[in-house]
Amino acid sequence: MLDFIYNTPTKVFFGKDTHKQVGRIIAEYGYKKIMMQYGKGSIKKSGLYDDIMASLNDYGIEVVEMGGVEPNPKLSFVREAVKVAKKEKVELILAVGGGSTLDSCKGTALGSANEEDVWDFHIGKAVPKAALPVACILTHAAAGSEMSNSAVLTNTEINMKKGVSTEFNRCKFAIMNPELTYTVSKYQTACGIVDMMTHTLERYFTVCPDTDITDRIAEGLLSSIIENAKIVMENPTDYDARANIMWASSLAHNGLTGCGRENLLAVHQLEHAVSGIYDSVAHGAGLAVLYPEWGKYMVKHNPARFAQFARRVMGVKNSDDITAGMLGMEKLREFFNSLGMPSKLSEFGIEKDSVEELSNACTHNKSRAVKSYIPLDFEVCKEIFNKCF
Amino acid sequence: MLDFIYNTPTKVFFGKDTHKQVGRIIAEYGYKKIMMQYGKGSIKKSGLYDDIMASLNDYGIEVVEMGGVEPNPKLSFVREAVKVAKKEKVELILAVGGGSTLDSCKGTALGSANEEDVWDFHIGKAVPKAALPVACILTHAAAGSEMSNSAVLTNTEINMKKGVSTEFNRCKFAIMNPELTYTVSKYQTACGIVDMMTHTLERYFTVCPDTDITDRIAEGLLSSIIENAKIVMENPTDYDARANIMWASSLAHNGLTGCGRENLLAVHQLEHAVSGIYDSVAHGAGLAVLYPEWGKYMVKHNPARFAQFARRVMGVKNSDDITAGMLGMEKLREFFNSLGMPSKLSEFGIEKDSVEELSNACTHNKSRAVKSYIPLDFEVCKEIFNKCF
Repeated sequence: MLDFIYNTPTKVFFGKDTHKQVGRIIAEYGYKKIMMQYGKGSIKKSGLYDDIMASLNDYGIEVVEMGGVEPNPKLSFVREAVKVAKKEKVELILAVGGGSTLDSCKGTALGSANEEDVWDFHIGKAVPKAALPVACILTHAAAGSEMSNSAVLTNTEINMKKGVSTEFNRCKFAIMNPELTYTVSKYQTACGIVDMMTHTLERYFTVCPDTDITDRIAEGLLSSIIENAKIVMENPTDYDARANIMWASSLAHNGLTGCGRENLLAVHQLEHAVSGIYDSVAHGAGLAVLYPEWGKYMVKHNPARFAQFARRVMGVKNSDDITAGMLGMEKLREFFNSLGMPSKLSEFGIEKDSVEELSNACTHNKSRAVKSYIPLDFEVCKEIFNKCF
Repeated sequence: MLDFIYNTPTKVFFGKDTHKQVGRIIAEYGYKKIMMQYGKGSIKKSGLYDDIMASLNDYGIEVVEMGGVEPNPKLSFVREAVKVAKKEKVELILAVGGGSTLDSCKGTALGSANEEDVWDFHIGKAVPKAALPVACILTHAAAGSEMSNSAVLTNTEINMKKGVSTEFNRCKFAIMNPELTYTVSKYQTACGIVDMMTHTLERYFTVCPDTDITDRIAEGLLSSIIENAKIVMENPTDYDARANIMWASSLAHNGLTGCGRENLLAVHQLEHAVSGIYDSVAHGAGLAVLYPEWGKYMVKHNPARFAQFARRVMGVKNSDDITAGMLGMEKLREFFNSLGMPSKLSEFGIEKDSVEELSNACTHNKSRAVKSYIPLDFEVCKEIFNKCF
């Protein structure tokens, strides 16, 4: 087991109607003036906006609103929000939404408390020394940003998407009411399920042995997600299934599933190449195609681990490790398919002749290899991408 | 799934030699003067004391020492420590030891930051409004106090042992080096393993359905503990096995295994009656006797849940739920036995005619029942205790 630091300071308020407690919670922390960010207004149609404002008003919390956060949140929006947050001297940034709104708020919180431009933190030019507190009312179970230390922004000036990980990115508190996810579409629900599963799988499939406890927790999470995903797909308003999925998304990415192991996120890097070039590809859907193909390529490089996953999570009985491992990845692909996820990149309208471009994007034009059981250099990337058609 | 609040702010530094970082960590938090509590001096013999003092000196941390914390930590010691902490104006209370030292430090931290006597918090006469920060260097994997919100003190004036749960009891940070547990005796190691397993089991065996994710995490923890316990019993200096066990002790009691479920701790209440009257009974050893007997009594009141445990954790194949559940509890008893734990209260020298006294202690002289699948009133307690001879 590798040494690790475990830090999950986010206080979680989980359950029915918890969003209506937001005013009381913020008042108890002693904040009087906040910035609230949200997306394109669906929270107004659903009544969520009114519920939140009523609670904030009840406790005399002053609110500066910034609606209009886009998917793949934009640096330009964050820079604007930072100006407003500084001018208005807000004390907390509250996200109402999913991963995109959260990441926009994290950027705003960093930008508002440091001298440097927030993009400097994303490109590693500077290290943040402080941040305004961030909090959220979560409306989508997927990215795990509500408890994670990371945030991703897109700089449209130079067409670059970059993440930054810092403990300042941990939310002060997260309000999670599974009922708020009832209206998430089947497709987006499925994308979220793939996202949280791969957050767990990416940490599970690394090279550190003798981390039974982290293995078992990861296997438990995956089994639970698979079980509840089936229920949610049939009945999107099943409270307990939505609750299990929502809590899983946080635990998958808050550090718990990586304790004592390397955290490489190799397949995320392959996927970022895809959705970086093909903007219409949803992150989860891209991962659904890539993960099983990456896995099938890798089975021979660590048969025991792939077989463990296959047997403990996917119910494979085969005694030969390589066969079991391959079957496990095939069953994973079938499961993703059963959620309505694609299994080929061509389903996104991507042509096979893009394989070179994708492999160049992954390897920064052959100048590096993605770290995995074997280094994913240009040739290996090509081989894996080729399998995705 | 029940609503819940999840709050685990303790920052964990886990791994080899982490105790030598204590000076740097405390300095980074900005504390300059601390109180350090420890037990009866084994840390001096082992060299741990010297390592810690060297690190604290390196960073100019001033240390007020309070050695001599006893097992079942005493209120009188805590009151003395509070006087010293107030007089010396220490800024942090550091525990070097296991659950007893931690609980003593938690009491000191509460007592030092409030007007009221610390015992008032334990008997519910007052509610703490503040606390000095507490931290620890853990030397024993068992109680889970390093991440929990609870602490137990014994008032020897009135011969009463009482716990208090408050979020002020959460450690600021916990340093966990599994190597520090190499020298814990086989018997104490086994007691610790039973303690952490029952922390998980007590939350697992409550009445809330549809918490698959919490179930799966609990089952994973239990499986991992069982697997690594066998290794540790054979080879007490197996680093990875000690590491898995140590991390399990924290996760078993920091709230994770109780999310969305009732937290009743029924068997702990039965055991407190035993070790309350018979001082020589180690908490874990008492639990090892009581848990399987409580379980066998309860199987008929929730066959499906006991069968789930038996099949997923204890490897029972039987298809009939009641038979499977009974087999699961029998296998649990066999496992505890394999660690050198007793299976009868008579092994502590307790006579069968004490059953009435024990049952009276549990039920406060027949004035209440312990909450479980069915209420454990005086008659039920008697029936369960009778099975323990």
